[in-house]
Amino acid sequence: MNEAGYSLQPVGSVESPLTDRDLAPRQGDEGAPQAWLVLDPTMRAAIDGLAVGADVIVLTWLDRARRDVLTVRPRGDQSRPEQGVFSTRSPDRPNPIGLHQVRIVAIDGTRIAVRNLEALDQTPILDIKPLLGPVGQR
Amino acid sequence: MNEAGYSLQPVGSVESPLTDRDLAPRQGDEGAPQAWLVLDPTMRAAIDGLAVGADVIVLTWLDRARRDVLTVRPRGDQSRPEQGVFSTRSPDRPNPIGLHQVRIVAIDGTRIAVRNLEALDQTPILDIKPLLGPVGQR
Repeated sequence: MNEAGYSLQPVGSVESPLTDRDLAPRQGDEGAPQAWLVLDPTMRAAIDGLAVGADVIVLTWLDRARRDVLTVRPRGDQSRPEQGVFSTRSPDRPNPIGLHQVRIVAIDGTRIAVRNLEALDQTPILDIKPLLGPVGQR
Repeated sequence: MNEAGYSLQPVGSVESPLTDRDLAPRQGDEGAPQAWLVLDPTMRAAIDGLAVGADVIVLTWLDRARRDVLTVRPRGDQSRPEQGVFSTRSPDRPNPIGLHQVRIVAIDGTRIAVRNLEALDQTPILDIKPLLGPVGQR
C-alpha cells in the first residue's frame, strides 16, 4: 500500500448553477439544472467514445461532505431512525464519492453538458463510466 | 483544495479466491465466486441498515490498475478500435475506482458475504451504496 496509490487526481470539475448544498436537489431527477463536466484538456483521448444522448455514470469527490459521519437520518428526515451511511445516499460518509447517473446532451471539446446532475458547482470529477447493467449491451 | 481532501481511506478489503487479474472475470455476472467484504471493525455503525438479500453497489480502489491509460481496446479485443476509457469499464483509468453491483448473501459482524463481485483478493473497499434508481424506492 503506497501513499500515491490512494491519492485521487481529479480529471475536471463541475460547472453548475447549484452552489448551496442546502438548496440542491437530493437526487438528480428531482429538478437538477443542466450542468457542464469541464474536463482537463489532457483528458481529450479518454472521452473519445462518449456520445450525445448516452446515459453515463459520473463519479465525483463530494469535497464539502463530512467524512466522520457513520449514521444519518435518510434525507434529513428527523422522524426516521438513524441508519448506517452505507445503506443511504448521504454525501457524508468515510469516502465521499458521488455517483450520478446523467444524460449527455452536448459535447464541446473536453466540455460535456449533462442533464440530471445534482452535484454542486466546482465539485471535482473523478471518473466517467458506462451504466451498470447486463454485459454485452455496451 | 487541500491534500487531505483527496486522500482515500479504505474502509475494508475484499477477501476472494480471485487473485490473478488475467484470470478474473471481466464482470461480476460472468462467473465471479462468492467473496467477503471485510470491513474495519470501526465501520460497524455504518453497515447498520444493510440486509441479506439486498443488491448494493460496492466501490473499490483497483490498486493493481494503471493510471496513465486513456484509451483501450474494450475487453482486450485486438479487433476492436481504441476507445477512450470513460466509455469503457477498463480498470486502467486515471482514478481506478471499481463499481460493482453485488447481492448480500450473509452478514457476520463487519464481514459481509456477497455474490457477483469480480474484484481481486485484497482489493481495498472505499464505500457501499444503495443501487442507483428512481428516488423513493429506498
